[in-house]
Amino acid sequence: MRPSKRNPDELRRVSIERAVSKHAEGSCLIKFGDTHVLCTASLEERVPPWLKGQARGWVTAEYGMLPRATNERMRREVTVGHASGRTQEIQRLIGRALRAVVDLPKLGERQISIDCDVIQADGGTRTAAITGAWVALHDCIQWMKLRDMVKDDVLRDQVAAVSCGLYKGAAVLDLDYVEDSGAEADSNFVMTGSGGIVEVQGTAETVAFSQESFDQLMSLAKKGIGELVALQKLTVS
Amino acid sequence: MRPSKRNPDELRRVSIERAVSKHAEGSCLIKFGDTHVLCTASLEERVPPWLKGQARGWVTAEYGMLPRATNERMRREVTVGHASGRTQEIQRLIGRALRAVVDLPKLGERQISIDCDVIQADGGTRTAAITGAWVALHDCIQWMKLRDMVKDDVLRDQVAAVSCGLYKGAAVLDLDYVEDSGAEADSNFVMTGSGGIVEVQGTAETVAFSQESFDQLMSLAKKGIGELVALQKLTVS
Amino acid sequence: MRPSKRNPDELRRVSIERAVSKHAEGSCLIKFGDTHVLCTASLEERVPPWLKGQARGWVTAEYGMLPRATNERMRREVTVGHASGRTQEIQRLIGRALRAVVDLPKLGERQISIDCDVIQADGGTRTAAITGAWVALHDCIQWMKLRDMVKDDVLRDQVAAVSCGLYKGAAVLDLDYVEDSGAEADSNFVMTGSGGIVEVQGTAETVAFSQESFDQLMSLAKKGIGELVALQKLTVS
Amino acid sequence: MRPSKRNPDELRRVSIERAVSKHAEGSCLIKFGDTHVLCTASLEERVPPWLKGQARGWVTAEYGMLPRATNERMRREVTVGHASGRTQEIQRLIGRALRAVVDLPKLGERQISIDCDVIQADGGTRTAAITGAWVALHDCIQWMKLRDMVKDDVLRDQVAAVSCGLYKGAAVLDLDYVEDSGAEADSNFVMTGSGGIVEVQGTAETVAFSQESFDQLMSLAKKGIGELVALQKLTVS
Amino acid sequence: MRPSKRNPDELRRVSIERAVSKHAEGSCLIKFGDTHVLCTASLEERVPPWLKGQARGWVTAEYGMLPRATNERMRREVTVGHASGRTQEIQRLIGRALRAVVDLPKLGERQISIDCDVIQADGGTRTAAITGAWVALHDCIQWMKLRDMVKDDVLRDQVAAVSCGLYKGAAVLDLDYVEDSGAEADSNFVMTGSGGIVEVQGTAETVAFSQESFDQLMSLAKKGIGELVALQKLTVS
Amino acid sequence: MRPSKRNPDELRRVSIERAVSKHAEGSCLIKFGDTHVLCTASLEERVPPWLKGQARGWVTAEYGMLPRATNERMRREVTVGHASGRTQEIQRLIGRALRAVVDLPKLGERQISIDCDVIQADGGTRTAAITGAWVALHDCIQWMKLRDMVKDDVLRDQVAAVSCGLYKGAAVLDLDYVEDSGAEADSNFVMTGSGGIVEVQGTAETVAFSQESFDQLMSLAKKGIGELVALQKLTVS
Repeated sequence: MRPSKRNPDELRRVSIERAVSKHAEGSCLIKFGDTHVLCTASLEERVPPWLKGQARGWVTAEYGMLPRATNERMRREVTVGHASGRTQEIQRLIGRALRAVVDLPKLGERQISIDCDVIQADGGTRTAAITGAWVALHDCIQWMKLRDMVKDDVLRDQVAAVSCGLYKGAAVLDLDYVEDSGAEADSNFVMTGSGGIVEVQGTAETVAFSQESFDQLMSLAKKGIGELVALQKLTVS
Repeated sequence: MRPSKRNPDELRRVSIERAVSKHAEGSCLIKFGDTHVLCTASLEERVPPWLKGQARGWVTAEYGMLPRATNERMRREVTVGHASGRTQEIQRLIGRALRAVVDLPKLGERQISIDCDVIQADGGTRTAAITGAWVALHDCIQWMKLRDMVKDDVLRDQVAAVSCGLYKGAAVLDLDYVEDSGAEADSNFVMTGSGGIVEVQGTAETVAFSQESFDQLMSLAKKGIGELVALQKLTVS
Repeated sequence: MRPSKRNPDELRRVSIERAVSKHAEGSCLIKFGDTHVLCTASLEERVPPWLKGQARGWVTAEYGMLPRATNERMRREVTVGHASGRTQEIQRLIGRALRAVVDLPKLGERQISIDCDVIQADGGTRTAAITGAWVALHDCIQWMKLRDMVKDDVLRDQVAAVSCGLYKGAAVLDLDYVEDSGAEADSNFVMTGSGGIVEVQGTAETVAFSQESFDQLMSLAKKGIGELVALQKLTVS
Repeated sequence: MRPSKRNPDELRRVSIERAVSKHAEGSCLIKFGDTHVLCTASLEERVPPWLKGQARGWVTAEYGMLPRATNERMRREVTVGHASGRTQEIQRLIGRALRAVVDLPKLGERQISIDCDVIQADGGTRTAAITGAWVALHDCIQWMKLRDMVKDDVLRDQVAAVSCGLYKGAAVLDLDYVEDSGAEADSNFVMTGSGGIVEVQGTAETVAFSQESFDQLMSLAKKGIGELVALQKLTVS
Repeated sequence: MRPSKRNPDELRRVSIERAVSKHAEGSCLIKFGDTHVLCTASLEERVPPWLKGQARGWVTAEYGMLPRATNERMRREVTVGHASGRTQEIQRLIGRALRAVVDLPKLGERQISIDCDVIQADGGTRTAAITGAWVALHDCIQWMKLRDMVKDDVLRDQVAAVSCGLYKGAAVLDLDYVEDSGAEADSNFVMTGSGGIVEVQGTAETVAFSQESFDQLMSLAKKGIGELVALQKLTVS
Repeated sequence: MRPSKRNPDELRRVSIERAVSKHAEGSCLIKFGDTHVLCTASLEERVPPWLKGQARGWVTAEYGMLPRATNERMRREVTVGHASGRTQEIQRLIGRALRAVVDLPKLGERQISIDCDVIQADGGTRTAAITGAWVALHDCIQWMKLRDMVKDDVLRDQVAAVSCGLYKGAAVLDLDYVEDSGAEADSNFVMTGSGGIVEVQGTAETVAFSQESFDQLMSLAKKGIGELVALQKLTVS
């Protein structure tokens, strides 16, 4: 029995609200239950220095968490002086996930920066961030299309993410904070709208797990990501 | 004529939504028009090192802005490596404003940290932050009272803030971004519920101004803060 | 009765010694009683990146304090790794004050950097710094005029500053450290030679104060700044 | 055909030289072909602050690369001022991998720090680091047993790691730098001596991949890790 | 012929003004010609953490330079974020020089921090700093004696320093900036009042030099330090 | 009697192994007994910004130490956030030593960066680093000659270094860690192949020493460096 009474293969209630920012070219507030992430896409007419003159664009992501998004207040990273290893890991993951579905040469020499800021955290912030980031990115590219800056096929596919884990011996989908803290194994999956795998990360928290267990996690992920992709499609249509 | 068509002594539409955070002891989302600030109050059973053993508490504030809260995306301060001078100035101001209405010895050896994070900016973020911070602080102290941690009179008064400025030669209340960028003089006032002055800051942006002008700004501020204080009272009652 | 036996409207003994640096284009050592600030003006044939190509110059200021300028030795800011919020607040204030009296387009694409280093501190370091900085700036511009780099009217006016406060219930001018530490309210005023207000900052240290009190502080400031402006004029003539 | 002429399921030549450090409690120099990593284990009679008084030990890892370990010289991270996201990701991975096979309560309130420094890089530095780190850790624990500091069963299992990838459409084992740069998908597997999965990381570099491909990568990994585990056993016996 | 017309073995005009700081326990302003260094000694009733409980004191030094002490304005080190290698080298040198003549156990568990801040630079700032630092240290210990905190023989000897160099082929004493910039070899000597060598540093700037040249530099240094030691004695008597 | 049983004028066993890096243009692993330093030379087709357009090259050095090179594990400098004063002192020394024997204009607008990384430390790391750095530099220039990038006479001479000290009253050559920790005086000498002095550094650790003692240290240094220079010659021939 999950603490949230959900079935093993049941996502939390997911909602995506578009166009929540007055300024950003694309934006949404995505909620995976009590995990709330604000995603904005910012278009810049420049690329990173190492990409100059290569006739391709770039998509990058940054991730942050408000100090009291969590149960105990955390120090701001600016006070510490640099982004934590966890933050860097997550923003690199989000960036890779998005670039997997963007045709960078067709973007032109421009950069889209996706900011994923966790307003409230209850587990699964990185998977909510990726899922919402795609919506913000989509709307930013839509904004560009309306201005004839890019052609139709810059965005090649959808991308979404979900976590799965082994909790009290059972494989469960979309862990909340309580489950995440007590899980024997924890994994994150990023997949495209057409079902391709973009990123797989599985970690044994207490003891090593078997390939059978891992296969169960992947099955759950496929089901969950299928539902998230359907919601994304509905949201932007 | 103001760009927003407001009268010179007219605030933007102000709203305060309480209890927006699942985790924080007190919180609100305050809106001064398109300026949106999330304020959370976090109670910690410790004081800063320099205050230990003095039988008094502390109230402090931190201020942040999401990268795309503004019209052009700004670099995260953590990327720069330290808080900007502007950020530090603002968080020191918020902290002083709140401490002016708290009876620190009655708080006991505890710290309340107020985080003011600008979700969307359109001028006046520091004054919205102070006004909302008081509500979050109030609710945090209420939370403590319900648990018999403090007595009734820890919070001695309300405190709120507003900006005023000289715009195209006229004194106007509560500047939005467009006015702020073009103002000849810019000022921020922090006052208590009973009308006392906590903080006055006036700056000539283009040319020096006269005492007469400054007196007009202060009159506007009194009116505006009166309205904000009334809304705070309504919100927490 | 003030600890220094001064009358409420009496400045400390003020002196300004010009040309104290072998290297700087303009310099002075200003003393407000036991507060001693070395001000140097450095001319650079470049402007900040964001001002390039705009046919205007820039005046900026930096502020520092020797570690044993104060009663207790303070850590060097370089050891901490960044300028404190207080330092940044002060150097932004000095820069704004000076720019209010300089015709930046007439300066040409050049920057004048004013360094204000507190050799010894006894309250009022920022006001002494502003008052001395103007003298260093004046002499730097004089140096440029002698070399036909600028015309006569780059410097539009004088600018000087003084602190006032409420000490044991009375409004007093030019607080020294002892008064500053015990004041109920503390304020800094920056005004031009012609009496215009450039900057007003008032802070309640213990309880909120009334507008009447604030008006008294402003009256004292006008008197004090009048005397400082007269001394500046004498010094550079 | 692989650039190195290896079979798809063939590791590079792997060697492990123990006791290469005069000072460290455990150490080895591990070579995966031209990738050379120096691993040292340092015993410290303290635990991190957050673990104090919990009657358990800790195993942590740090990862570094000499500036000219790579084909082009890289800036030292100390010059940049902080560890890169990549470095942090890798050292967190090594630490988790090792802790998965250590009985931390049986270690006592002590910390073992494993330093993995890449002397020369040719792809697969993190997997070589994990495989060598286990040997250094083993020898450190051996050192402790000889001094009766711990019992026999602190180290519960072996742990080793290998990379696999899709290169020109084929699944291959243990990518060198040339393959790594051109791979369509890149993955790292960490497994125990008894075949349990500790960590799985798979990333699509160009296009998303299928579950079938991923299963092939995992099969290769099992084979490769089996061989590495056998070599570890031989080395420490 | 030296640019300054001095004889090869002639110091610049040296002066030492004691008690220049209202706050410091010992202080002086030392001038080696146009090189002016403010030295303050600050007594603290604590020792560095690594020296606690060892019944000995510590003497340390910090070195700084005002931004416009030099011909071209330099960036503040706090802006760069850390002390330069040169600054650290010099402050370590000053600290070692002073500790060579202090009986640290007799100082008790206290630290004396000497701050040497260069107000104006014209070559030889580190040697002026050491020579002046001894006077500040002496006066601080005198201050302690007057309060019966230490006995007579804490300070075992004097210490002073001077630079020598090979300039246009000739060995010269006490280089100013012009000579320093053009010297073939540059050296700094630190010696005690009784003639012992505390520190010798010689560097070839253009080509390697012979032992004969080095011996000449040392002879000049002995003569110069003899004169500086005599002036110190006169100053503190 | 020296702890290592060596004669006062006896070097430790010294070995130099060339071409130890697959990537670097020049490299060696130098051992002074148990002190092992890996030296690599990296050629870059650029010069530091301040040297641009001056038709000369640059040679620079960086120095690092693996965390467990020493008896007690040290924190990585990247964790501290910046290079220590000691590290900076040493890398500046190595750079100066090498530049003393390179004809920089003949190098062309290129930079050679020498990295000296201490794999294992037992005293004398900086002198081993300089001696090995010359070999790496030599081989890098050889690499350039083979590609007709420079002419024969870029490298004007050899350069090597050794430490000497006063240990239990006697002058001894090439101190190991035990001697270094207990020495009364410690010195480092850098000399060219033709016997010229490039750098002399002598420090009294406990009491000041006499010129006679210093002369003895220099004699030992000459002998030791003579042997090191002979070994360098043999190595690169």
